[in-house]
Amino acid sequence: MHVGRMYPLKEFLFWTRREIYLITIITIIPTVLYAYFDIKWIAIPWVPIALVGTAAAFIVGFKNTQTYNRLWEARQIWGAIVNSSRAWGILVHDFVKQEEAGNTHQQLIYRHIAWLTALRYQLRESRTWENMKKSYNVEYARFFVVPEKVNKLEDELSTLLSAEEEAYVLGKKNRATHIISLQSKHLRELKEKGLIEPLNYVELENMLVNLYEQQGKSERIKNFPYPRQFASINLFFVRLFMILVPFGMLKEFEKLGDDLVWLTIPFGIVVSWVFSTMEKVGESTENPFEGGPNDVPITSMSRTIEIDLREMLDETELPQPIQPLHDILM
Amino acid sequence: MHVGRMYPLKEFLFWTRREIYLITIITIIPTVLYAYFDIKWIAIPWVPIALVGTAAAFIVGFKNTQTYNRLWEARQIWGAIVNSSRAWGILVHDFVKQEEAGNTHQQLIYRHIAWLTALRYQLRESRTWENMKKSYNVEYARFFVVPEKVNKLEDELSTLLSAEEEAYVLGKKNRATHIISLQSKHLRELKEKGLIEPLNYVELENMLVNLYEQQGKSERIKNFPYPRQFASINLFFVRLFMILVPFGMLKEFEKLGDDLVWLTIPFGIVVSWVFSTMEKVGESTENPFEGGPNDVPITSMSRTIEIDLREMLDETELPQPIQPLHDILM
Amino acid sequence: MHVGRMYPLKEFLFWTRREIYLITIITIIPTVLYAYFDIKWIAIPWVPIALVGTAAAFIVGFKNTQTYNRLWEARQIWGAIVNSSRAWGILVHDFVKQEEAGNTHQQLIYRHIAWLTALRYQLRESRTWENMKKSYNVEYARFFVVPEKVNKLEDELSTLLSAEEEAYVLGKKNRATHIISLQSKHLRELKEKGLIEPLNYVELENMLVNLYEQQGKSERIKNFPYPRQFASINLFFVRLFMILVPFGMLKEFEKLGDDLVWLTIPFGIVVSWVFSTMEKVGESTENPFEGGPNDVPITSMSRTIEIDLREMLDETELPQPIQPLHDILM
Amino acid sequence: MHVGRMYPLKEFLFWTRREIYLITIITIIPTVLYAYFDIKWIAIPWVPIALVGTAAAFIVGFKNTQTYNRLWEARQIWGAIVNSSRAWGILVHDFVKQEEAGNTHQQLIYRHIAWLTALRYQLRESRTWENMKKSYNVEYARFFVVPEKVNKLEDELSTLLSAEEEAYVLGKKNRATHIISLQSKHLRELKEKGLIEPLNYVELENMLVNLYEQQGKSERIKNFPYPRQFASINLFFVRLFMILVPFGMLKEFEKLGDDLVWLTIPFGIVVSWVFSTMEKVGESTENPFEGGPNDVPITSMSRTIEIDLREMLDETELPQPIQPLHDILM
Amino acid sequence: MHVGRMYPLKEFLFWTRREIYLITIITIIPTVLYAYFDIKWIAIPWVPIALVGTAAAFIVGFKNTQTYNRLWEARQIWGAIVNSSRAWGILVHDFVKQEEAGNTHQQLIYRHIAWLTALRYQLRESRTWENMKKSYNVEYARFFVVPEKVNKLEDELSTLLSAEEEAYVLGKKNRATHIISLQSKHLRELKEKGLIEPLNYVELENMLVNLYEQQGKSERIKNFPYPRQFASINLFFVRLFMILVPFGMLKEFEKLGDDLVWLTIPFGIVVSWVFSTMEKVGESTENPFEGGPNDVPITSMSRTIEIDLREMLDETELPQPIQPLHDILM
Repeated sequence: MHVGRMYPLKEFLFWTRREIYLITIITIIPTVLYAYFDIKWIAIPWVPIALVGTAAAFIVGFKNTQTYNRLWEARQIWGAIVNSSRAWGILVHDFVKQEEAGNTHQQLIYRHIAWLTALRYQLRESRTWENMKKSYNVEYARFFVVPEKVNKLEDELSTLLSAEEEAYVLGKKNRATHIISLQSKHLRELKEKGLIEPLNYVELENMLVNLYEQQGKSERIKNFPYPRQFASINLFFVRLFMILVPFGMLKEFEKLGDDLVWLTIPFGIVVSWVFSTMEKVGESTENPFEGGPNDVPITSMSRTIEIDLREMLDETELPQPIQPLHDILM
Repeated sequence: MHVGRMYPLKEFLFWTRREIYLITIITIIPTVLYAYFDIKWIAIPWVPIALVGTAAAFIVGFKNTQTYNRLWEARQIWGAIVNSSRAWGILVHDFVKQEEAGNTHQQLIYRHIAWLTALRYQLRESRTWENMKKSYNVEYARFFVVPEKVNKLEDELSTLLSAEEEAYVLGKKNRATHIISLQSKHLRELKEKGLIEPLNYVELENMLVNLYEQQGKSERIKNFPYPRQFASINLFFVRLFMILVPFGMLKEFEKLGDDLVWLTIPFGIVVSWVFSTMEKVGESTENPFEGGPNDVPITSMSRTIEIDLREMLDETELPQPIQPLHDILM
Repeated sequence: MHVGRMYPLKEFLFWTRREIYLITIITIIPTVLYAYFDIKWIAIPWVPIALVGTAAAFIVGFKNTQTYNRLWEARQIWGAIVNSSRAWGILVHDFVKQEEAGNTHQQLIYRHIAWLTALRYQLRESRTWENMKKSYNVEYARFFVVPEKVNKLEDELSTLLSAEEEAYVLGKKNRATHIISLQSKHLRELKEKGLIEPLNYVELENMLVNLYEQQGKSERIKNFPYPRQFASINLFFVRLFMILVPFGMLKEFEKLGDDLVWLTIPFGIVVSWVFSTMEKVGESTENPFEGGPNDVPITSMSRTIEIDLREMLDETELPQPIQPLHDILM
Repeated sequence: MHVGRMYPLKEFLFWTRREIYLITIITIIPTVLYAYFDIKWIAIPWVPIALVGTAAAFIVGFKNTQTYNRLWEARQIWGAIVNSSRAWGILVHDFVKQEEAGNTHQQLIYRHIAWLTALRYQLRESRTWENMKKSYNVEYARFFVVPEKVNKLEDELSTLLSAEEEAYVLGKKNRATHIISLQSKHLRELKEKGLIEPLNYVELENMLVNLYEQQGKSERIKNFPYPRQFASINLFFVRLFMILVPFGMLKEFEKLGDDLVWLTIPFGIVVSWVFSTMEKVGESTENPFEGGPNDVPITSMSRTIEIDLREMLDETELPQPIQPLHDILM
Repeated sequence: MHVGRMYPLKEFLFWTRREIYLITIITIIPTVLYAYFDIKWIAIPWVPIALVGTAAAFIVGFKNTQTYNRLWEARQIWGAIVNSSRAWGILVHDFVKQEEAGNTHQQLIYRHIAWLTALRYQLRESRTWENMKKSYNVEYARFFVVPEKVNKLEDELSTLLSAEEEAYVLGKKNRATHIISLQSKHLRELKEKGLIEPLNYVELENMLVNLYEQQGKSERIKNFPYPRQFASINLFFVRLFMILVPFGMLKEFEKLGDDLVWLTIPFGIVVSWVFSTMEKVGESTENPFEGGPNDVPITSMSRTIEIDLREMLDETELPQPIQPLHDILM
């Protein structure tokens, strides 16, 4: 997530420079053929281009709307995780009786942080359809750091789970799922010991069900991309449009004077750049958990939750909030 | 669900080749009549076409939006089924006391998998308005396999239900519904035996109610297509538009030079192909459970749930996750 | 609800033939005045028509979106009724103890079916703003049968309620409401007799509250039409647009040649038909409970629920599912 | 709420006649200057007008969408009030034990009707941004009666609350809020007397929380208008567009012939009327509780609830449903 | 929140005067170059501008839609806070037994008001992407007062919390979070003393969970701006469009007569102003808690809640409702 006022235009142009090169070539070729080699028949009327443009605009607009919705829903889900985590904090504190000198509360809270940790590592895994491996994103990625790609999950879990539990969890396919099932098992034992009242036990268990819901919703966004059939025609139509644009502009500029036909080049580039950039911004918003600069800042949110929960345990040595790097907050 | 980066353009062109043939004929006829047989009066002004085009664009855009919503809602429902299934896993484990050497937990979990199985078989049944029987889809369908059309429901259920229960369930109209009612009956017996506490019993029963909800929502998407009145005018308007387009382009291209009128053919084809493809992509997204390449991957999701639940039972011989075939995940 | 692949174009043209006649007249008059009587000043430029067309397109598009939403919400509500009904089935079965040889379960289930019946009869009543009384719909209505308009409510209820209860219910304004209140009274008596445990009693009562919600939501769609102020300007603007269209086309066709001005007639008709049909399809989707061919199939859904519930009672003489007539499912 | 088929065109023209006068003047002045005084330079090209028109169309369309959403949400909220009220009816009836010859049920039901009454009076109060004080609405308002502006709240409450409670409630800022708090107090007393079981008590109290929610949602729509910043630019842009339209049409009509420039007047009026009417219909939908003809019919709905609840008390002297006046239902 | 009928046009023009100056310069330069210095080749055809305009219009429209949604959701969240606060009022009153001469009710209510206070102070803190520091907003801000920026949080809390609790809360990172955890601790103590029944205790605790949800939702809107990637291209495209507009108009006005080319200046300004203003209104709606004139009036809403709650405690010395200043309600 970018936390500054704006992306600077310079960075945007740098980020899209490969498109700009491509567009430049696409635009120069027909102009040179037309104006220099005098191949006049390649100029086409504006009508078919306007129609393709309408389709491209609809499909790009639609994609941007849906990717925005995906991003916003992802943020809502993680907002709900914040809320449920705080609720978990007070429910554990006030529903679970702690034996003298016991650390049941701490166990239940730390295991919750372990769940958050496992979940965010799972969400940072790579998928075929994600975009961070593309050259322009790899390039931009040197501006910031994705902690989940630097630190090992094992190291993070080892301070939060007992060695036995950690081994159990790491042996499972979906680790977050089985951390919750450990919580459930622990609650049952506490309840059987009489440390949780039956009514309160049900509420705590329901909170676990709620956490499964948030986890499942995150996984839905992660594992179900913007449908590939729409993404495909999006790409086809925008490319087609970009190819057609200079052919259609030739006549328009020629009307103003023979020499002015060369203006097709700068204005063709501007127009194609606008559409291509709109498409690209949509693309870079598509997958809100892939570790890109426009992601939901799940590392930072997890840290905030951790601080809140540790403060509830009245710990005083708190971890620092995650700071943005180059205005990018992870 | 397509799990690659994109559908290759080649496959798209192949998939739409019948439309391309048709469009080519539609476009060639007026051009030949006009340019070769010199029947000039068939060229029409652009204004009426633009109006029909506006209506067609609105109605195609609307259809794509709604089919996307249907697909996304279907995925949400199955996401909720994942969540409820995991919750079922921990609730069964920790709310139901198991007698020494009993397998109550396993029964309740396996019966749940049976429900998932019955449900996905029901969702794969064919409906009049579905598209997988169309020639171009039948053709494409050889790239992948729909397990529900290959394996028999009886075989799948027999490993999950007792023979008696299986016979009972197979005798009913809506099998999934009656598997849940078996779960409910079993829970009541367990509760009467004192193996489930009253409070917890209510929560488990509520989870069954929740599963009925998800089942009913899946059935709603399955049984209530994109309304046929809208689908019909969608088809009429797009066809009408495709027929009108070349007539309207003749004059536009002729303005650029007499010979250039022949360019109506390639550009007419491009424009009609764009609209026809947009329409067709919408159509192929319409019914997210019909067993097509853009479906919600319910077979795979059921398998994932099965693995999670069996891991909760600490089974070690786990079934393999479903793998995509030719980038299509079922 | 139409359950076929498409409405045939022939039926559509037949259904809209009155509009076609009207449009033909509207289009012929200015063309004849212009081309035959040579009244040239009636041709108007395209600009004002484009503006009125934009407004009409927006308002028609908006109406279609909203009527689609009404239809889809209505289907969601009835989907929720299906879910709650099945839940009612298992909750009655497993929460209510039945005395030896008693038929409490059957009473509670049959009374529920009576509620469904009363509700669908209420929803089929006629409202001032509904469209099924319009001539073209009356005409089309001979293709199918609306059971609620053929059978009497009294006859249907008599097999489901005791004579006393039936009389009580028929004496009330809103019958469905008071069937639920009978359910509630019955539950209380059962609870007082100790046949329902307190916790379970609350769940059953909550289910009744849930049914009130679904009933109220159905009534909302029934009793609150697409707002008449929007419906009115919709009609005014579309009509205005249809009147203006031929005047605006005259000049466009004349540019192509003097004789071609007569082409205003077929193309004017095509354009006006497209807009008028779009408007009419919206209208016929507006009220999803009025007994029209595009309604939510509440009769059929009630029957499906009835079958599911009777199977839960292990009845074997089940009613048949409702079959579509002429592809229309009620 | 208008309950007829349509607003007659005549009424619409009458209701918008002030705009028509204004538009006529705005349109005549430039035409006369241009055609009669021959001031040719005031004709402007269509391009800037099309851009302003696009902005105006977007902003008017957006406003209509949002006001429709406000209306529909208001109706949903009151639908939920209907549902909760019926639920309140059965819960009071079956959860609260009534002492012999007591009238506890009646008290709880009547106090609920008092809440409905207080709420609808609050919602009918006037706000700065509402439109019913505008001359054309005052004029139209003689066709119907807003009961809350005719009858006094005190008179209505006196038949529903004890004198003491009425005095208490009338002394508070937000009366509806404190009627609910009286309900809560009464329930607690009944519970302490053992007339309500603990579990059922919680359900009843939750129903009060639910009623607070519906009340708060109604107040949200009432107290938070369509944001004034959007409403302001909406007005500015539409006015600007209406002023520009005739200037832009002059050239278009002149092209057809010198005399035909006078046609700018009728067609300019038609176009501006369409946009102005669209804007005005949006405005008259903006505030669904202000006592206008397009409001949610809260008086009538309250009466329906009252009838349902009194029938549950088996009262036989029921008030009459509210009847529409001049097709307007309040 | 502006509570008048409209922003006066004068204020709008004043507020946007810096843009007007800028636009004027942008528009004058090309016109002078073209008409005075006779540099004819800078006039460009309308086609590329229309395309950039389409993209700009889409992206501005999209932004306005999303910022409206953000504002409206923020208002919904605070509406829910109102509802939950009233519910908290009656639940505290009727679920918590108060010892003779005790002030438990008051403590729980005052601490709730403290939570509201801490929350609104947190929401008024400044963020990098917020707009109130921009010169034109600073200028406008002298018309009204943001109480949270004038009064100190410590002073407000000191009348609501004990000194000890205040110190505890002020020592925490997220104060609102830890006020709720104090509530939870207090409830547990009361429950252990037998002053709250187990069932009711769970409901009260659930209400705290609900408050965490509303708090978290407010924080989501506060901390997650309209995504910067979209905001950036929005700015780039609108600026680009504004720069292109006068170049494109030159030819259009010249067609009408050589002198009329100067009309490019006023009409270019009008068009650019419309788009720039639309953009700016979107921007000023973006962050509904930043202390601007279009914010959700959280200070005023908190005061209303305070009055309702104090009236429930039957206090008579009530604080005054917040009054709007210069039509702006905070």
